[in-house]
Amino acid sequence: MEFNLKEAMEILEQTPKTLESFVGSLSKEWLTCVEGEGTWNAKEVISHLIEGEKVNWIPRLRFLLQEGNSKPFPAFDRYSHLNDKEGSICEALIAFKEIRKENLETLRKLITTEAQLELKGLHPAFGEVKVRELLATWAVHDLTHIAQITRVIATRYTEEVGPWKEYLGIINR
Amino acid sequence: MEFNLKEAMEILEQTPKTLESFVGSLSKEWLTCVEGEGTWNAKEVISHLIEGEKVNWIPRLRFLLQEGNSKPFPAFDRYSHLNDKEGSICEALIAFKEIRKENLETLRKLITTEAQLELKGLHPAFGEVKVRELLATWAVHDLTHIAQITRVIATRYTEEVGPWKEYLGIINR
Repeated sequence: MEFNLKEAMEILEQTPKTLESFVGSLSKEWLTCVEGEGTWNAKEVISHLIEGEKVNWIPRLRFLLQEGNSKPFPAFDRYSHLNDKEGSICEALIAFKEIRKENLETLRKLITTEAQLELKGLHPAFGEVKVRELLATWAVHDLTHIAQITRVIATRYTEEVGPWKEYLGIINR
Repeated sequence: MEFNLKEAMEILEQTPKTLESFVGSLSKEWLTCVEGEGTWNAKEVISHLIEGEKVNWIPRLRFLLQEGNSKPFPAFDRYSHLNDKEGSICEALIAFKEIRKENLETLRKLITTEAQLELKGLHPAFGEVKVRELLATWAVHDLTHIAQITRVIATRYTEEVGPWKEYLGIINR
C-alpha cells in the first residue's frame, strides 16, 4: 500500500470533533474513571494529545526536515501533561482542536511534494525513520488514544453488565 | 457502584454523533478496510448497531417488562445485518442516529422508576438478568464497537508506521 498524505490527514482532522462528540457531554463520573492505579482518565488522555501537538509531531517533523538523519530527534517527557491538572474537559477539547488545526496548516506548508515523504530522520531509540512513517504514526497514535478512552469509560461498567461480561471483550481482557 | 440510568443514557446518546464525527468524512479506503477475513468494516459495524436497535435492546427490554423471568428472551440473528449491503456510510449513520433517538425516547417512557431497574428476565444462555444489566450492556456494547472501528481503521497502517509499530498497542496485538 502506498502512503497517502490526504488520507492520513483525514484521520488527524477527525480526532478533535470525535473526542468532543464522545466525551464533551459526559458526566464527571465518566470523565474521572480510570482503568486502574497509574492509568489515565479521559481528560489526561486529551492533555497527552495536546502535549504531543506541542512537543512531538510537528517539532519532530521540522527537526527531520532540517537535520535529516545526521542527529537523532531530541527527547521529550512523555508524562509532562500529568503536571497540568487545571482546566475542564471542555477547555482541553477546545485547546486540542485549536492546536491540531494549526498543526495541520503547518503540515500542509511543510510537506508539498511526494518526495519529502521519503526523507529520513534518526529516532533516538530505533534509528532511521521516514517522514511518511512519522505521519502514519501520528494518525495511529490518535486512534490508539480514542480506543483507550473507550476502554477506560467501559471499564466503569465491568460489574454493571452482570453475566453479559463474558460477551464484552472491551471489559473482559 | 449504583447503576444510574441518566449516566448510561449519556453513553447511548453520544454514540451516533461520535461515529458521525469519526467516520462520516473518511475516504472509501478507510471505510472498506478490515482486520482480516471474516471481520467487519466500519459500515458493517454501524449496520450491526442499527440491527441491535431493531431486534435486540428495546425488544428485549419490552419482553422482560412483560414476561419477567417466566420465559427466556427470543433468539435473534446476530449476523443478519451482513445481508444488507446497500446504502452509503452516511445513510447508515443517519439511520442509526434516528433509530437510536426513537429508542431512547421509548426507554424514557418504559422506565420511570428505580424499582424497574431491578426487574428480572431470563437470558437464553446465562439465565437470570436484571433490567439494569441489560441497559449497562447496551451502553458497553456501543463502546465495544467504537473501539472496534478504531482498531479496524488503525490496522490499515500496520506497516505504514514503520518501526513505531512496537510502541502502538492498537496494531501490535
